[in-house]
Amino acid sequence: MNSTLSATPLDANDLTNIDAYWRACNYLAAGMIYLQDNPLLREPLKPEHIKNRLLGHWGASPALSFTYVHLNRLINKYDLDAIFLAGPGHGAPGVLAPVYLEGTYAEVYPNKSEDIDGLKHFFKSFSFPGGIGSHCTPETPGSIHEGGELGYSVSHAFGAAYDNPNLVVAVMVGDGESETGPLATSWHSNKFLNPKTDGAVLPILNLNGYKINNPTILSRISHEEIEQLFRGYGWTPHFVEGDDPEVMHQTMAKVMEECIVDIRETQQRIRASGSDERPRWPMIILRTPKGWTGPKEVDGHKVEGFWRAHQVPLGGVKDNPEHLAQLESWLRSYEPEKLFTEAGQLQPELKALAPKGNKRMSASLHANGGLLRKSLKMPDFRDYAVSIEKPGQCLVENTRPLGQFLRDIMKKNMSNFRVFGPDENSSNKLDNIYEVSKKTWMADLLPEDQDGGELARDGRVMEMLSEHTLEGWLEGYLLTGRHGFFASYEAFIHVIDSMFNQHAKWLDICNNVSWRAPISSLNLLITSTVWRQDHNGFTHQDPGFLDLVLNKSPKVCRIYLPPDVNTLLSVADHCLKAKNYVNVIVADKQKHFQYLDVDEAVKHCTKGVGIWEWASSDDGFEPDAVVVGCGDIPTQEALAAIDLIHQYFDDLKIRFINVVDLFKLISDSEHPHGLSDKDFDSLFTKDKPVIFNFHGYPWLIHRLIYRRTNHTNFHVHGYNEKGNINTPLELAIRNQIDRFTIAMDIIDRVDRLQGIGAHAKQQLRDHQISCSLYAYEYGVDKPEFGDWKWGDMSAIKE
Amino acid sequence: MNSTLSATPLDANDLTNIDAYWRACNYLAAGMIYLQDNPLLREPLKPEHIKNRLLGHWGASPALSFTYVHLNRLINKYDLDAIFLAGPGHGAPGVLAPVYLEGTYAEVYPNKSEDIDGLKHFFKSFSFPGGIGSHCTPETPGSIHEGGELGYSVSHAFGAAYDNPNLVVAVMVGDGESETGPLATSWHSNKFLNPKTDGAVLPILNLNGYKINNPTILSRISHEEIEQLFRGYGWTPHFVEGDDPEVMHQTMAKVMEECIVDIRETQQRIRASGSDERPRWPMIILRTPKGWTGPKEVDGHKVEGFWRAHQVPLGGVKDNPEHLAQLESWLRSYEPEKLFTEAGQLQPELKALAPKGNKRMSASLHANGGLLRKSLKMPDFRDYAVSIEKPGQCLVENTRPLGQFLRDIMKKNMSNFRVFGPDENSSNKLDNIYEVSKKTWMADLLPEDQDGGELARDGRVMEMLSEHTLEGWLEGYLLTGRHGFFASYEAFIHVIDSMFNQHAKWLDICNNVSWRAPISSLNLLITSTVWRQDHNGFTHQDPGFLDLVLNKSPKVCRIYLPPDVNTLLSVADHCLKAKNYVNVIVADKQKHFQYLDVDEAVKHCTKGVGIWEWASSDDGFEPDAVVVGCGDIPTQEALAAIDLIHQYFDDLKIRFINVVDLFKLISDSEHPHGLSDKDFDSLFTKDKPVIFNFHGYPWLIHRLIYRRTNHTNFHVHGYNEKGNINTPLELAIRNQIDRFTIAMDIIDRVDRLQGIGAHAKQQLRDHQISCSLYAYEYGVDKPEFGDWKWGDMSAIKE
Repeated sequence: MNSTLSATPLDANDLTNIDAYWRACNYLAAGMIYLQDNPLLREPLKPEHIKNRLLGHWGASPALSFTYVHLNRLINKYDLDAIFLAGPGHGAPGVLAPVYLEGTYAEVYPNKSEDIDGLKHFFKSFSFPGGIGSHCTPETPGSIHEGGELGYSVSHAFGAAYDNPNLVVAVMVGDGESETGPLATSWHSNKFLNPKTDGAVLPILNLNGYKINNPTILSRISHEEIEQLFRGYGWTPHFVEGDDPEVMHQTMAKVMEECIVDIRETQQRIRASGSDERPRWPMIILRTPKGWTGPKEVDGHKVEGFWRAHQVPLGGVKDNPEHLAQLESWLRSYEPEKLFTEAGQLQPELKALAPKGNKRMSASLHANGGLLRKSLKMPDFRDYAVSIEKPGQCLVENTRPLGQFLRDIMKKNMSNFRVFGPDENSSNKLDNIYEVSKKTWMADLLPEDQDGGELARDGRVMEMLSEHTLEGWLEGYLLTGRHGFFASYEAFIHVIDSMFNQHAKWLDICNNVSWRAPISSLNLLITSTVWRQDHNGFTHQDPGFLDLVLNKSPKVCRIYLPPDVNTLLSVADHCLKAKNYVNVIVADKQKHFQYLDVDEAVKHCTKGVGIWEWASSDDGFEPDAVVVGCGDIPTQEALAAIDLIHQYFDDLKIRFINVVDLFKLISDSEHPHGLSDKDFDSLFTKDKPVIFNFHGYPWLIHRLIYRRTNHTNFHVHGYNEKGNINTPLELAIRNQIDRFTIAMDIIDRVDRLQGIGAHAKQQLRDHQISCSLYAYEYGVDKPEFGDWKWGDMSAIKE
Repeated sequence: MNSTLSATPLDANDLTNIDAYWRACNYLAAGMIYLQDNPLLREPLKPEHIKNRLLGHWGASPALSFTYVHLNRLINKYDLDAIFLAGPGHGAPGVLAPVYLEGTYAEVYPNKSEDIDGLKHFFKSFSFPGGIGSHCTPETPGSIHEGGELGYSVSHAFGAAYDNPNLVVAVMVGDGESETGPLATSWHSNKFLNPKTDGAVLPILNLNGYKINNPTILSRISHEEIEQLFRGYGWTPHFVEGDDPEVMHQTMAKVMEECIVDIRETQQRIRASGSDERPRWPMIILRTPKGWTGPKEVDGHKVEGFWRAHQVPLGGVKDNPEHLAQLESWLRSYEPEKLFTEAGQLQPELKALAPKGNKRMSASLHANGGLLRKSLKMPDFRDYAVSIEKPGQCLVENTRPLGQFLRDIMKKNMSNFRVFGPDENSSNKLDNIYEVSKKTWMADLLPEDQDGGELARDGRVMEMLSEHTLEGWLEGYLLTGRHGFFASYEAFIHVIDSMFNQHAKWLDICNNVSWRAPISSLNLLITSTVWRQDHNGFTHQDPGFLDLVLNKSPKVCRIYLPPDVNTLLSVADHCLKAKNYVNVIVADKQKHFQYLDVDEAVKHCTKGVGIWEWASSDDGFEPDAVVVGCGDIPTQEALAAIDLIHQYFDDLKIRFINVVDLFKLISDSEHPHGLSDKDFDSLFTKDKPVIFNFHGYPWLIHRLIYRRTNHTNFHVHGYNEKGNINTPLELAIRNQIDRFTIAMDIIDRVDRLQGIGAHAKQQLRDHQISCSLYAYEYGVDKPEFGDWKWGDMSAIKE
């Protein structure tokens, strides 16, 4: 740590200016909350200048802009590349103010110009219908972190820093946010940051003491405890505590400069020496009053430094002359007349304090990552395809070739592509990746790691047992213009439901923000799926994430269920190239039958849904029944059911359809991938029974097709929340997606089999029961589940 | 801390016995994974003794039973009431073994008797279809924590400890689990535990070093860092580190006894003195090899003390004679012949080590909380009702009377009822509760807390900005036989989607476990709902939790959308009395119209769905259209639409239906609350247009009714993921649930209005647009949203 810095690094002029700049920020933050007119108080404040509805969060704002302006000083002094993440996103005024003052806001929104009119417009638009949001939304220049839902600021910051060796990611963390689980574990991200090739994260934990109505935990433990906590997390905490602006400016200037110098020296030393050490990175603990510089008391109640400062400190200004007067004197305490020119621009000597051009944190290209994004260099996915002589004959682990494909993508993109997974990439059969890049690990190494540890300081595979942290890293990585791939157990992707929701909302809004360049899609592989969680039991069986994805905007969500290796490769190739989506790919890691050669797979995936002629017997006629498979195991079972049924009724005309792209089922008026009603009808018929074997909860399909002509004839099978310790076939049977149930359902639904199908049904049921009994007797499936091959089900009938 | 304990508290005999008991546990844990016959190795091990499918997790098991047997010693010595939670739930063999050895297993499952036959059956059933799960499932005596999804062991433990002053909750925490966010923040629960009235939580963090394929973070940081981390979290960590059983037994015996003595002394001192201090509670950091005492090496690769010990350390035993031999020598290393009698029972001198009766952790009544559960003493909810002279005239904050009701429930149940919420109970208008009980707060207090802090050491309202921790506390509290109520912002209830899933699965299984007594329902109030998150913007708008709830078993899930105060009170009263459910209540906190007096409310809620005659004009005839409101704002808008439409077509026969109980819509064959088709048809007609205004995503309704006769005529309006900063009415308009859209939709759907409705539609659209423009001009709604009253919409037509 550099100790040569003066205790008062700011000279009198610096101090005056930096304080003035900060006062300008605070003035703007308060103005945004209150004023619809008279933006610079050129006339006495009147009720009509006050907005009709007072919204916004004052409490976190002053400390946010305090930190922002001190970062500006060091960006200039050290020519830093820096971005700023505001964990307390509700304190948007504290970010919007410096963003406006450094000119970026007017550049992207010309009607919020740097003059009185623009300022008035800026103030009025804040938290106003159709206007500026009260968090650091996608519309905020420089933001990659909205902060609407709390908990992800630190993981987003690390995601931005990976593979950005020259970037300093300053992240302000709220002490409220710090109580969330995702934030609490994300401090450990420092064990995954390589000082040689990654940038730096500088967290500034703001202990302003309060949430909405409560004190925060971290502000109410002893100094010793909080210091130990952050040392225990592996950081070196530096304290900046107080409320006297003059003292605080000097202290913050000194401490922040020490941190920046420490970061730079550490990086230089390690990059020069090649040392493998994990540094103890610096962080700042900034203890300031909530609503700092705002009203001290209102109506006899403490406000500054208390939770009452959280939102709007003075509520009754429009009707209560006393409040109005208090507001005016508060606003005038910042001396706007000294801060702004006659025309309403920030005084030139203050304007000079902001960094220039893209050095401004609000104009950093890193915070509009699509501008920096380079397409992945991709090998041809066809090179990883399995060869298929005849469909449904051989078993391959579906995810293994994908792992090889990802390995070679990694090889070609060793500075802008990472793979993420919670300690499960090997379990998920993606371990070929490690041939090119191991798991990032900056914590201690042991000799035994040599044999099977797959750990490396410069690894690019990110594994931590926290889906929250991984998702946050990946989002930060994508938002700054890079590429990634996340694989998770299906049941536990629900851990990040809310993060998915928020990212989908972010992308949805981005589609309306013209200056935001598109970023890489968030690619989620959902594997270790319900149908092979027979042995892990009920807790590991949950295909419900898809229901959630369907709730989000069709503009940004895609769901694929490739049934075999080649379709999975084709889908993955597509997803890795697509922009501004969340792509959800559902594919199990176990051995599954292979159906389509690579050319067929490409064609099938391009269509997204299609008839498999080789599995169909309708030969251009109207079928007796349509059988649909969607998902790997459901497709296998549907095909096996067709084999079974043909043992009894060899003239039955069955059309077999496989669905890869789930959104094909929805109307083209509701989703860009949707089939037209005409195409849907021609595939699924207008009146024939459709037995639909689905990967997830069955009612999801009904929700997609309820407006289609033939929907009353759809009979959907899927996971019915019936699980325990089972064999795979037994689990399928319990949920009625197994071959026997499907075959029996075909018999029930095809009119001309009424009556004459009774004997076949009885045999099928007997066989189903014997399979169950076998499982309970021997603890494994009868051969059928694994050993059946397409076209080979002759055993059952005799 | 007591320092008078010997460094070797176990005499030779104690040591021999405790080690033998532990060896018996380890033998059983391994036997469960491998053996289907020859359970005590009375004959040489042969392939046919080995199960056909090898499943289970060995790695965590030895340290689990090591801890369990040492707890047993202290339960006996100090006559403790203790329960045991296994965070590494995958290590169920390490818990099932001591549970079996102390006889509880055979008591509840007589065919798993304590003899060779029973043991064989016990071994074979483990991870076997229909058998014993591989986590600490509800079928496990003594378990209140399954551990299938990781992250909640510590919060569950605290929930169990609250209001149980004599209970010691021992919780083993895995170092894998420790990486999750929920676990990382749950260590702060010690700021919410009152030593006077709550019991103690003794965490034992097991650093076995590895997850599935990776080292764990906490095992790979320095001793100094991990000690600082837990001191920073406010604990006093005690280290037990090593692998030599003899040394480890002495160390563990000493350290654990020190912890227990420390806990008891602290409790006694504080209870005697009345001190308000927050003690630094002890915890144990137990560093042992993963798969301790198992195979050191297999096929030349390190296994014990490495991730390879995670699941089945020797995979090929059935086919590989070398592995088989290694397994046999491993199993025989525990000397089963010395541990069990000829009949296959644990030797009497070892059996004597276990506590007796309900002192056994596996037989503790606290872990079968339904047995201890006492019904809440309830005031009459009618006493909190608002009086209604005429429906739809006055506005009341819907949740405020509920807060008064909860306050008085609290008053009558000051030792077995708590209210939980993430810093939002005041914001959610439930703050009357504080009149009886404040917020639990054991961290530092400041003078300013006197004015508005509402904090107290003995508070019973639990507020922390971590939905995960709150949900975990509540679950632990309920599972040990108490009652609770959780209020959350709607959008952020998704943070605990996966916890809800797991609890619902737990309850579903409990319904099949005859010895588990029913527990209180988990009551979730979802408030600050989408329709009033206009100003917080898009991130705060998400009604999708209901979609998730519908995926879980209909046996355990209930969803209510009471539209006003009195229906909310009636629903809450019902939910607080019901057992073994998750009750989700959706009700906004803002001012809403009141419709039903308390008697009508009770009747309406009892039916769950019904016609509101006063809002209907069908008068016993077939209606022209059915209009449905489900949720507070959608009901208001639907009623306003009826008012509007009657301005134009006063002879239109409209039937208005309100839905409180969402599951009424589903068929009675699928949910116990479901309406029969006959009743459904008589309410919703067989062929009339149904304009359904719904609180959540609209397709959810279609998913519920797709099999109903009239479903093609249902036109559902709901949240369509269109949001930003808006006014309430404008947000409703953007998502087409507003009065104008509903009125226009009625015109579109009623045949006889075709053509003649054009003029009315045009006027309605104009009015809608003018409302939007007004919002954009003035930042607030036109009076309509708030000032409309039922029966009073005459202004529009002129």
